[in-house]
Amino acid sequence: MTIQVVFTPAGLAKDEVAGRGVFVIDVLRATTTMCAALHHGARSIIPVASIEEAIRMGQTLGPDDLLLTGERHGKPIPGFALGNSPLEMTEAQVRGKTLVMTTTNGTGALLSAAGAAHVYVAAAANLSAAAARARQLMADGLDLVVVCAGRHGAFGLDDAYTAGRLVVETIGDRRRLDDLDDAAVAAVDLVRRYGVRWERPLGRSAAARQLDAIGMADDVVEAAKQDRYPVLPVFAERRVQVAPLG
Amino acid sequence: MTIQVVFTPAGLAKDEVAGRGVFVIDVLRATTTMCAALHHGARSIIPVASIEEAIRMGQTLGPDDLLLTGERHGKPIPGFALGNSPLEMTEAQVRGKTLVMTTTNGTGALLSAAGAAHVYVAAAANLSAAAARARQLMADGLDLVVVCAGRHGAFGLDDAYTAGRLVVETIGDRRRLDDLDDAAVAAVDLVRRYGVRWERPLGRSAAARQLDAIGMADDVVEAAKQDRYPVLPVFAERRVQVAPLG
Repeated sequence: MTIQVVFTPAGLAKDEVAGRGVFVIDVLRATTTMCAALHHGARSIIPVASIEEAIRMGQTLGPDDLLLTGERHGKPIPGFALGNSPLEMTEAQVRGKTLVMTTTNGTGALLSAAGAAHVYVAAAANLSAAAARARQLMADGLDLVVVCAGRHGAFGLDDAYTAGRLVVETIGDRRRLDDLDDAAVAAVDLVRRYGVRWERPLGRSAAARQLDAIGMADDVVEAAKQDRYPVLPVFAERRVQVAPLG
Repeated sequence: MTIQVVFTPAGLAKDEVAGRGVFVIDVLRATTTMCAALHHGARSIIPVASIEEAIRMGQTLGPDDLLLTGERHGKPIPGFALGNSPLEMTEAQVRGKTLVMTTTNGTGALLSAAGAAHVYVAAAANLSAAAARARQLMADGLDLVVVCAGRHGAFGLDDAYTAGRLVVETIGDRRRLDDLDDAAVAAVDLVRRYGVRWERPLGRSAAARQLDAIGMADDVVEAAKQDRYPVLPVFAERRVQVAPLG
């Protein structure tokens, strides 16, 4: 069984994910925020590509128990109930609600993985849960693809490090070079370089520096807390929900 | 002045290179092979995207002093004079000749950089010459983009490590995080991880393992020799030639 990492979903082809187990990472912040929302009782999250689609989806589904969420340039979208901060996803806000979410990089990464055998959401916030499922999938004979959302189609240090952590947690010391593609090797190299503390690799990323610049540095601190929201979100039938056990 | 690294030319936009100094890396093997050919007296190299274009170009330019070179799946192309091995580019073969070259990843990367202020070819084989020019460009006020050819549109460990070496040689200890994008930071992290010996990061790459599998492991050894072919190839007016001094 192999593990492949892609540093950006740009150009990810259907046949690269077909039949495989996919883990999508946008640690700053979309996948962290999804974990927070589901951990706090949101019923499901519907990722959509555009603001227009979010609004249309909201009109189709009706206002009951529905929240529009997301960001552009890191900032909340005018008229939307919530932004893209994990700290906003309190139980009071999200319990029982369906969230329609659009973000700059994360929701697109998730949509690019449609067509895989399984698509899960991963972040520091649910690392152990994601790795446990990854080990299970490999034991079941599936190849894995870890899709980093990256940043505007380019490499993001925060997601690449998180991908490396997921690979290391998944395969432990059973690392055989032939099982990993070059990007997976490099992601693991980042873990060797930075060690197990999340603050430095996340904090050095351009994403963190942008959040800092718009006064949202607390989100970086929150996203760096390992297993803070220990749920396993699965993306199927257009919705992200807590995966059934097993 | 900033340094940006792109791990694959897929999706590289014209405005990302416009007005900048670009260094293109395909260390296994196209840019190493270009350095070898020019060091041994080839007059110029014309990179083309396809076998058909190489043949057409050969017919247009006429047979005098022209050599068709390149590879597909690592192997020489039937009917072409030379493959894509730096070891083939002997003085006896290439002196005074114009090479028309098509390779799987490297020539495409070079063509994707057309439109930049300057486009240079870099590899371990000419690291010091490339870094010297990079420092000069930055001193002149230009931003730099290091374009890794990668592998079939995906990340290549060999090129990423080489990019990191070029960044380190260029900026030395004057590393300010704000001057580097996330990919440049990660490339430098690979250098911190592997140190200054080329064998390990190159040898671990999928490109090296493929060359090994087709009996061309000597090319990996050759490509890992720093400053083996100390020329500075520049790509302009569709040709790669030795850059004028200064």
